[in-house]
Amino acid sequence: MSILAGLRITECAAFIAGPFATMSLASLGAEVIRIDPLEGGLDYRRWPVTATGRSLYWAGLNKGKKSVSIDLRAPAGRELAQAIITAPGADAGLFISNFPATGWLDFATLQRLRGDLIMASILGNRDGSTALDYTVNCATGFPLATGTPGGDTPTNHVLPAWDLLCGMTAATGLLAAERHRRRHGAGQLLKIALSDVAFAVVGDLGLVAEVQINGDERKRHGNHIFGAFGHDFETQDGRRVMVAAVSLGQWKTLCKATGISAAVAALEQAEGLDMSREGDRFAARDALARLLAPWFAERSLAQAADRLDTEKACWGLYQSFSQLVHDDPRCGPASGLFTPIHHPGIGTTLTPRSPIDFTACETLPPGVGPLLGQHTDEVLLEVLKLSSGAVAALHDQGIVAGARE
Amino acid sequence: MSILAGLRITECAAFIAGPFATMSLASLGAEVIRIDPLEGGLDYRRWPVTATGRSLYWAGLNKGKKSVSIDLRAPAGRELAQAIITAPGADAGLFISNFPATGWLDFATLQRLRGDLIMASILGNRDGSTALDYTVNCATGFPLATGTPGGDTPTNHVLPAWDLLCGMTAATGLLAAERHRRRHGAGQLLKIALSDVAFAVVGDLGLVAEVQINGDERKRHGNHIFGAFGHDFETQDGRRVMVAAVSLGQWKTLCKATGISAAVAALEQAEGLDMSREGDRFAARDALARLLAPWFAERSLAQAADRLDTEKACWGLYQSFSQLVHDDPRCGPASGLFTPIHHPGIGTTLTPRSPIDFTACETLPPGVGPLLGQHTDEVLLEVLKLSSGAVAALHDQGIVAGARE
Repeated sequence: MSILAGLRITECAAFIAGPFATMSLASLGAEVIRIDPLEGGLDYRRWPVTATGRSLYWAGLNKGKKSVSIDLRAPAGRELAQAIITAPGADAGLFISNFPATGWLDFATLQRLRGDLIMASILGNRDGSTALDYTVNCATGFPLATGTPGGDTPTNHVLPAWDLLCGMTAATGLLAAERHRRRHGAGQLLKIALSDVAFAVVGDLGLVAEVQINGDERKRHGNHIFGAFGHDFETQDGRRVMVAAVSLGQWKTLCKATGISAAVAALEQAEGLDMSREGDRFAARDALARLLAPWFAERSLAQAADRLDTEKACWGLYQSFSQLVHDDPRCGPASGLFTPIHHPGIGTTLTPRSPIDFTACETLPPGVGPLLGQHTDEVLLEVLKLSSGAVAALHDQGIVAGARE
Repeated sequence: MSILAGLRITECAAFIAGPFATMSLASLGAEVIRIDPLEGGLDYRRWPVTATGRSLYWAGLNKGKKSVSIDLRAPAGRELAQAIITAPGADAGLFISNFPATGWLDFATLQRLRGDLIMASILGNRDGSTALDYTVNCATGFPLATGTPGGDTPTNHVLPAWDLLCGMTAATGLLAAERHRRRHGAGQLLKIALSDVAFAVVGDLGLVAEVQINGDERKRHGNHIFGAFGHDFETQDGRRVMVAAVSLGQWKTLCKATGISAAVAALEQAEGLDMSREGDRFAARDALARLLAPWFAERSLAQAADRLDTEKACWGLYQSFSQLVHDDPRCGPASGLFTPIHHPGIGTTLTPRSPIDFTACETLPPGVGPLLGQHTDEVLLEVLKLSSGAVAALHDQGIVAGARE
């Protein structure tokens, strides 16, 4: 049995945060029903797409879910969606959305249909105004602290980090609320704003206190690790590695692997520094990088890797997405994390399961990216217990649709 | 009552993933006991630090927790820690660690002390080898896709995104396992590897399929949003904004706010494109950015903001960390998210609560960053039910310590 077997969550959402939350819960065994309008949600054609226009992004973020396609502009369609969201069952009645929680998706309205409904509403800003990862990220301070030192234009991240973290925060919140409901009977509305998730992290990491307590702010340090030693280096054969020493142990193994101990001692004496202190390693980061650069420049990746691994130094290889897929066994079919899965309309590709391993519960294989509307009939028949005649009538009226690709 | 009131989680961890997981659960009301060695963990002096050497990072990531200080090299100290981790109580017996789960922290050993223990073990790589956010991030592909187009050196992110996501994944896993235990009685070991969390996301976002299905890989597009339209622009008064249009609605509001509709129509005709399609907007991204740049260059931030907000266009302002703290009300004392909190040994600073709002449970104020060992006696007396004489003896023997700053 998978760890969330039996739990049912309905989703009316698009893009990353909401879909990632429920995709993660589906990968743990929850039954997730994603309801989309007949033509697909705003993210249905989101890039990257295949030659035939199928979205690889949509397939990835909705894998393992049931897709239900309903005309959400029609009153009868909205009633159907509400019925699915509020369908009975002790392990059902969980709902996540990033649509405005008004009108037919108003919490009080839905709560009249199921008194103990749990609803997670994902917002841009807490006041309900729009914000995306891109328009929140620029405000956090990180893009101005990212990239080459001395530069003055911002560098946006490519990873939608805030969306992902917001989604996983919502997943945690849903499970916390489900725990509360089972103990006390009460459902509730959870609100999670993307910008709150991001700004809270700025505080959690000490960056707000750095401004207020130290009267300082994080500078742009390129690929140096702040407050410790870590940097990227190019090898003789043109590959690039990142080395990191965030503890004294890691620093010692790095020095031993690269044989720079004597040069470091000379530097300590010349500069009055003590490299056993991470603050001093950070202060001397440029000099230390200059000491290390020739060691890497004189060795192939294989030679450098051999020495670093022998001493158990902490390092990583820079890879393109292609190199990750083709060369890194951690992403390959023997990884245990990725399995080749056929996704209808797309093809077969390495697909990840949940990154959590459990010892007392079944680890589920990766989910399949559904076709839009693939599970419409199944959900109407099994969740709403409609008759096959009633389902056929809904199709005839254009209120619902099945898979069309 | 807060949503996780009563739940008790013990932590032996350092740096971000583990501490962030439990800090997030503490912000929802869980009792979190962080056990550290007498001199503090590896992250106890992590930068940024105050003038007196207190870590703002440590305070931020451990706020709301109880800090217990034990000599973890001494057998008696290890037994004490094991007793806290496995202390009885239906809502206790949850443990999170990023230390090697061997020796006194071996799961089977701990399970002999509490049969239904839930333990989340955070690893670097699944095989137990070391990996940090920095050495995983380089391998994901993102740093080579980040930064100015045409550049060939990688750009590391500054936000430790993988650590944060790994931590929140662990929080979700712990709550899932606690749900399973309450229903079926069984505890278990969860393993979550940082590199699995990261590589799974590469798959979830469609980037693995982009390589395998499309035979392509994500290029470096600078501050352009991939597959849609979005870019940064400088205003007349030298500020910089990010505008985003990831839906047709957002594109239309952006055109209306900036008055570029006629120029866009001319561009469509000249290039044979249809800007109602987001793929075409992405294809024409440089031309569209050139159309918009003068509009921003001719307006102050206030003037541009007024137009954009009037039309409800989606945009955000680039800010430094100082500007976020000083100028953005979403980070200020009236935000509802941040409250000025006094942290002992550090001072008063705006501190975030949980970014989740609940309607049926109490929203807790932000937690206080504890002093190392501040709650040693409280935990020994209340959790282990030791006598005050026994606690005094442990202090005398140097096995435990209270706060010393």
